[in-house]
Amino acid sequence: MGAADSMTDADQARGHGAPSPANVLAALNAYLKADMEACNREIVARMHSPVPLIPQLGAHLVAAGGKRIRPLLTLAAAHLCGYEAGPDRQRHIALAACVEFIHTATLLHDDVVDESVMRRGLASANAVFGNKASVLVGDFLFARSFQLMTADGSLKVMAILSAASATIAEGEVLQMATQNDLSTPIETYLEVIHGKTAALFAAACRVGAVVADRPEAEELALDAYGTNLGMAFQLVDDALDYAADQQVLGKTVGDDFREGKITLPVLAAYRAADGEERAFWQRVIETGEQTDDDLPHALALIEKADAIRVTLDRAARYADAAVKALEIFPDSEIRRLLIDTAAYTVNRAN
Amino acid sequence: MGAADSMTDADQARGHGAPSPANVLAALNAYLKADMEACNREIVARMHSPVPLIPQLGAHLVAAGGKRIRPLLTLAAAHLCGYEAGPDRQRHIALAACVEFIHTATLLHDDVVDESVMRRGLASANAVFGNKASVLVGDFLFARSFQLMTADGSLKVMAILSAASATIAEGEVLQMATQNDLSTPIETYLEVIHGKTAALFAAACRVGAVVADRPEAEELALDAYGTNLGMAFQLVDDALDYAADQQVLGKTVGDDFREGKITLPVLAAYRAADGEERAFWQRVIETGEQTDDDLPHALALIEKADAIRVTLDRAARYADAAVKALEIFPDSEIRRLLIDTAAYTVNRAN
Repeated sequence: MGAADSMTDADQARGHGAPSPANVLAALNAYLKADMEACNREIVARMHSPVPLIPQLGAHLVAAGGKRIRPLLTLAAAHLCGYEAGPDRQRHIALAACVEFIHTATLLHDDVVDESVMRRGLASANAVFGNKASVLVGDFLFARSFQLMTADGSLKVMAILSAASATIAEGEVLQMATQNDLSTPIETYLEVIHGKTAALFAAACRVGAVVADRPEAEELALDAYGTNLGMAFQLVDDALDYAADQQVLGKTVGDDFREGKITLPVLAAYRAADGEERAFWQRVIETGEQTDDDLPHALALIEKADAIRVTLDRAARYADAAVKALEIFPDSEIRRLLIDTAAYTVNRAN
Repeated sequence: MGAADSMTDADQARGHGAPSPANVLAALNAYLKADMEACNREIVARMHSPVPLIPQLGAHLVAAGGKRIRPLLTLAAAHLCGYEAGPDRQRHIALAACVEFIHTATLLHDDVVDESVMRRGLASANAVFGNKASVLVGDFLFARSFQLMTADGSLKVMAILSAASATIAEGEVLQMATQNDLSTPIETYLEVIHGKTAALFAAACRVGAVVADRPEAEELALDAYGTNLGMAFQLVDDALDYAADQQVLGKTVGDDFREGKITLPVLAAYRAADGEERAFWQRVIETGEQTDDDLPHALALIEKADAIRVTLDRAARYADAAVKALEIFPDSEIRRLLIDTAAYTVNRAN
């Protein structure tokens, strides 16, 4: 679908220097422009329901935007694997929408679980429509995603995406179980972020290889790319929660802190802390007793322990592994864009 | 599987007179004993997860029991359609478990949405484990149900159950949108209960015909049986909420009242009310301002309007339609049990 034309757009968006965060996603979007437009139309169309509140809440979510990185990955993987799209061959579009529906359903439920008031710089759906609507519309989107898979008709795709959905829920439950617990091993934290983020990144990429009917080695390579990219992405997200400029990222700094969420910046700072500092972390994270002065002090301790750097270094290693996983594919524009995307996930924090 | 042996059990449980509520379900359970035991084992096995909270919450739900009417329907439909089960042909068992997983996921989310503290006479899962766990474990069970369908491998089954899942969510959203609204048309109320209850009853029955590879007429007949049975079942449930003996049914009388839920007993009483009574209903249902004396007064107004009878009469008509839908099947023990089940759904209120 117009890869030849859109390469020019992609080149323009990308510029000629090293990839910077803003222009990498722009380049990927430019390369996949026609597909992403079709995917967005599919998302709106499939959000339809005779029950008005469902498309209303759906419109709120669509308006909120977001990077749509997961459907981009499905489309990019399909291109990388040479999927021959055509008027009657639009499986990658439907599955990209399906992946975004799964993601959106989990976001709606996360915001209820986390009692979030903001999402992507706008009031979160639960803040506008209430928790009940968020739970139920999340369920609807989840069910609708399975209808999209069923319409696609590939048992392999269904196995990949239903397993990813179960893994996401397990990751979220594990995250809840570790909340406020500073003794959480780093391995458990990594298991959490694998579940909540990397599993769907991996599945989003892998289904691109499946629709193109490529050998298992390519499926597994894309799975590895997605897994490692997702790990890097979540690590950076967790770092940004203690470092981000709220206006730039549309998220509230210190959300994780206020919720007592166990992330690597906190674990690294806690492990490096002296007795008095440990008592501070125990009070603010384990008992949840916080005052207005606590976030600045936490940020100071995180800086002292170099815990953001520790987190971003680990993210960089996952990003490197993501790039390495693409080595089995021959050089191409879309492969270069996926490599740049791995760099982007880490660079957006710098 | 052992239908010949269990017929004796079923006959014994059923007795020789007209079916009474208690012995109809006992007879159905006795006829399907081996299958239900296998289904319960499947439910426990598929609840497994490396994240301990998931099987813990699962065990709470299994211990709470419940009538398991939906998996019974799948198993009964498979028997009615002559599904030839065997050691390697256990699709009906896996799909019965799948149906129960979908139902359990919606129960968990309902309890969060309704802020229930009791379910089936025990503390509800959200009361014991918290709302967050209920949302997330519900998501897990929902995802697991799709993994079970994928393992079954029938696109037809997946289409039926994923459409039912979307319809359930739509019904729940519509119920939320009509909450506190006494101007809700009865047709809208019927649409709500079709979504929240009848759609899954219908799907549970229909997949029994699909696994047995029966002609579409039998699929549709079982779909109609399940739809009408589900409508009757929910109407009776809604009547019982204004009539039930709490200890017998393990549910709190007046839950719907306190939540301002719009059900037929309330709609019928409101439509029959005079000016003063209408003002009462508007205060307690629309504004939600309630005192301890209001439930007894509401019960008196419902009795005065004969609104329980109105509701149960409508339920009886659906039950009759359910029985009529089974006419295309030849007489058999399991057909008689399904006919008795339709009678049971109405009689349990008497």
